[in-house]
Amino acid sequence: MKISRLIGERFREDPSDCVLKSHALMIRGGYMKYVANGIYSSFTPLIRVMRKIEGIIRQEMDRIGGSEVQMPVVLPASLWESSGRLNLVGSELLKFIDRNEKPHVLGMTHEEAAVDLVCEYGSSYLKYPFMIYQFQTKFRDEARPRGGLIRVREFIMKDAYSFHTSDEDLKAHYKTCLLAYDRIFKKAGLNGVMIVESDAGMMGGDISHEFILPSLAGEDRIAVCSNCDYRANADTAKSIKIKNAVKDNNELTLISTPEVTTIDALCAFFGKDKKDMCKAVIYQKEADEGYVVLFIRGDQEANETKIRNYLLDEIRPAVIDEKSILSAGYTGPYDLKPDVKVLFDDSLEGETGLVCGANIPGHHYTGLDIKRDCGDVAFHDFAKISEDSICPGCEKSCITITRGIEVGNIFQLGDKYTKAMGMQYTDIEGKLKYPLMGCYGIGIGRLAASVCEQSHDEYGPVWPVSIAPWQVHICCLRADDAHIREHADLLYDQLQDAGIETIYDDRNISAGVMFADADLLGVPIRIVISPRNIKDMKCEITTRDKSYKELLPLGDAKQTVSGLISNLLDITSQDGCPGNSV
Amino acid sequence: MKISRLIGERFREDPSDCVLKSHALMIRGGYMKYVANGIYSSFTPLIRVMRKIEGIIRQEMDRIGGSEVQMPVVLPASLWESSGRLNLVGSELLKFIDRNEKPHVLGMTHEEAAVDLVCEYGSSYLKYPFMIYQFQTKFRDEARPRGGLIRVREFIMKDAYSFHTSDEDLKAHYKTCLLAYDRIFKKAGLNGVMIVESDAGMMGGDISHEFILPSLAGEDRIAVCSNCDYRANADTAKSIKIKNAVKDNNELTLISTPEVTTIDALCAFFGKDKKDMCKAVIYQKEADEGYVVLFIRGDQEANETKIRNYLLDEIRPAVIDEKSILSAGYTGPYDLKPDVKVLFDDSLEGETGLVCGANIPGHHYTGLDIKRDCGDVAFHDFAKISEDSICPGCEKSCITITRGIEVGNIFQLGDKYTKAMGMQYTDIEGKLKYPLMGCYGIGIGRLAASVCEQSHDEYGPVWPVSIAPWQVHICCLRADDAHIREHADLLYDQLQDAGIETIYDDRNISAGVMFADADLLGVPIRIVISPRNIKDMKCEITTRDKSYKELLPLGDAKQTVSGLISNLLDITSQDGCPGNSV
Repeated sequence: MKISRLIGERFREDPSDCVLKSHALMIRGGYMKYVANGIYSSFTPLIRVMRKIEGIIRQEMDRIGGSEVQMPVVLPASLWESSGRLNLVGSELLKFIDRNEKPHVLGMTHEEAAVDLVCEYGSSYLKYPFMIYQFQTKFRDEARPRGGLIRVREFIMKDAYSFHTSDEDLKAHYKTCLLAYDRIFKKAGLNGVMIVESDAGMMGGDISHEFILPSLAGEDRIAVCSNCDYRANADTAKSIKIKNAVKDNNELTLISTPEVTTIDALCAFFGKDKKDMCKAVIYQKEADEGYVVLFIRGDQEANETKIRNYLLDEIRPAVIDEKSILSAGYTGPYDLKPDVKVLFDDSLEGETGLVCGANIPGHHYTGLDIKRDCGDVAFHDFAKISEDSICPGCEKSCITITRGIEVGNIFQLGDKYTKAMGMQYTDIEGKLKYPLMGCYGIGIGRLAASVCEQSHDEYGPVWPVSIAPWQVHICCLRADDAHIREHADLLYDQLQDAGIETIYDDRNISAGVMFADADLLGVPIRIVISPRNIKDMKCEITTRDKSYKELLPLGDAKQTVSGLISNLLDITSQDGCPGNSV
Repeated sequence: MKISRLIGERFREDPSDCVLKSHALMIRGGYMKYVANGIYSSFTPLIRVMRKIEGIIRQEMDRIGGSEVQMPVVLPASLWESSGRLNLVGSELLKFIDRNEKPHVLGMTHEEAAVDLVCEYGSSYLKYPFMIYQFQTKFRDEARPRGGLIRVREFIMKDAYSFHTSDEDLKAHYKTCLLAYDRIFKKAGLNGVMIVESDAGMMGGDISHEFILPSLAGEDRIAVCSNCDYRANADTAKSIKIKNAVKDNNELTLISTPEVTTIDALCAFFGKDKKDMCKAVIYQKEADEGYVVLFIRGDQEANETKIRNYLLDEIRPAVIDEKSILSAGYTGPYDLKPDVKVLFDDSLEGETGLVCGANIPGHHYTGLDIKRDCGDVAFHDFAKISEDSICPGCEKSCITITRGIEVGNIFQLGDKYTKAMGMQYTDIEGKLKYPLMGCYGIGIGRLAASVCEQSHDEYGPVWPVSIAPWQVHICCLRADDAHIREHADLLYDQLQDAGIETIYDDRNISAGVMFADADLLGVPIRIVISPRNIKDMKCEITTRDKSYKELLPLGDAKQTVSGLISNLLDITSQDGCPGNSV
């Protein structure tokens, strides 16, 4: 393709509203253009990158037995009603009424549609296991789109759904899919993707993993053990607490503590440590504004994701004022009168001699004994894992918290959807059973942006050849000179005939602009044809990553380029990411 | 691919709710499944057909200089506001409010988004002409989805938008695109596609054409001249009328005509011909229910599309009762008191001695002289062209009305969108001008269904090799016999290695079911490996269209198949549809 036919503008300065480098470079390089908050149009270079990523994914999905399908973007709301998710999912799910007054949604994920699609097909055990997958436009009305393609509202996703007759079979396929994902990311040129345990959230199911590219640009917090191979999303990682020693002298004593309302102030007031405090963290449910009070030891931080998953409800930090039924700073678990939802973090289990709010403004108790004063309450883990926490894997205090971009996720859904929607199969003995499901997602645009985030320099993306928009970029300097032009045209034709994807810059512009544009397009191999070199019938071949630079006879260009492409493809086609224990 | 991995069910009986054969066969063959009114999921065979159609279209769009882009499905309503179409388009356009209270639409066509995408790029005349195109999911909330993929609410469309600095350039590119469309339909295996003049409708612009596949399954009415090459959509074709001779004795005379309200009854009552009547056809505007009265000669039929395009408003047949300001059956152009919108069809221009309603219940006038009694009114063509009408091309009475499926459409939009949205470029003299636009659409699913509609037998589709889901279908009879299976496996591997797209049926099922499934998948070349033939180391090769059948040595199968594929591809790769004067 000649660059003159490429629609889109390229420019030198990072746009001021771009926080992430991948976002800035993809705007500057004419890959995409803003349409609305979290919604972009794509130009040819990005479309070519995305199509190559799709090709890699399709190959791997076919390899593990997937069957490609295409489900609709617009789904009848009744499908989401049948799974019980219609009202469970918040405003991310876009709902609307069509011209015939029928409620519909824009499918943000397709578990329900997948069950609906295969429920007749999967009516006998003989058809199992099987997996369907699709590439499809999805819309999620995200509250905070950010970082260009990293978090958008409209995007193309590969989602896959597998169906099984036993948990062993689901787990075996899940492992197969996990390995396929590992190959996909490696082939797309991503290095160091971690596989971490994660939170299933609204998807349901017990076991799920995320594929995380470590990156400061990421919004996911990951707990990584420096001693063993434990890796988990910090939102879901189990927080292990060390118990305090049992204290004597445990009488519940009311103490006047006017204006002492924070944990730090209480520690100072009583001369005690944070871990001797019983802290109240108050939320309100989004649905009905009802209060939820979490009691947790003062040295722990509340983890909203865990609370949300336990309640199966959306929550937000409570607004407490003078009219509220709870008093800010003085709420405690003993003799709490208002009828609110109360949760206990397991950091409090068996603790004694604690300081807690007295539910009387300006007063706290000392000497709280949880078992004695609160009775037989249930304890759960509602705390955040943090730097230096105890690793749930090896039980050493070796947790570090790192940031990353989630480039894929996989879930063992069990029979949540098939049971809710009444999908059954007849087993070998003629009995009706609910199949088990797994689901597996990758956002195509986010993967493209993640590769760019990991592989770029100040001048533009450095695309791996496997997903680069083109393999070769010919820069013809002084294309207005018929002699030079003739050689460049000839080489372009030769490369095209050899099936090498080539972008050809034959514009009569300065070398500076031409090279800046080439840097922004990030094509792995560049051939420069210039007045100086053409005198000796030579051309210069370089790689975008600067690892290769040669002055070669023009006649050798095609063969050299073919060899370079093979070498570069070899690098990304090795199976499996080293360093991951999968 | 092994057929055992193909998700979806195939069955023998046409579903009762399928009117069109293409719809029935694509449901029966496991190509697609109903999700909601006008919304379907697709299985692998249909996805493969659609991807091949996309490939053909992409090749032709690239060939005429198109640059592939991808615009969003969800668009801010402000874009449609800027073009003035937000409120012009009816309930087909889905509008919704997002979580941040911003109005959005589901883009049913992308003129506005295209202008928004390229307005900076196209700021200098040096960039012109250029064309962008995309393949994209669109949603149109159609009132009456029908015929499976023929008229759906959600579909994948190729839409292209070209930009020009002169009308000559737009027209030249329009012609180029028209020829590319002709090649696309031919390559996809459609025969006899007609290019007809059409109605631009809500798209705007003066000139537009539809590509019509003649078919009784179609919902478009096409006027075709049997004498010249005139072809036009009957909704838009100019209706030419023969004037009546001027009549003497033209006094306006009030006649009592109780209960004589229809044209036929009036003809009988007065002993006159339909063409001596001035008929009133009454509509109401959708927007404000205001009346629109069309006066037209009694031998002509009103054409609602022409009225709609003239008024730029939606209309529907009026509801007239005793309380209405107009009297049913007695409305006439002389002394019409109520303040309603009045239109005159040009069939009435200069007519004399007509019978018309007297605007008095139970009374008509005779002797109406339009010029004398109605004054200087404007006449337009609001009539339907019909069988035996005068051809606007050759002016002979040779029009026939035929039915067809619209498989593509192209429009010269002029500066409608660029002007409304303020897109300008600087011309060679430094002056700011509005570029001219063309737009060009093809629905991928409808094209697939149209090919199926044209090319099938009672057992299934007969896919042209260019868009068939696979090129070869191996049927292995008695796959439970290790010896037979071994040869079939070997042939499957050979064909796969040769890059031939092969579906392989190695299920242990009856020949009847296996062949029925093969017929439904409609793959052009079938190889049968059976106990009888394998004794002589032979296999049977047939084509789905029954034009070829040979018993061949197994060792020759690969080469024979390659040759057959080349021959079949040759048939569809000829440029241009004969019989169309383009």
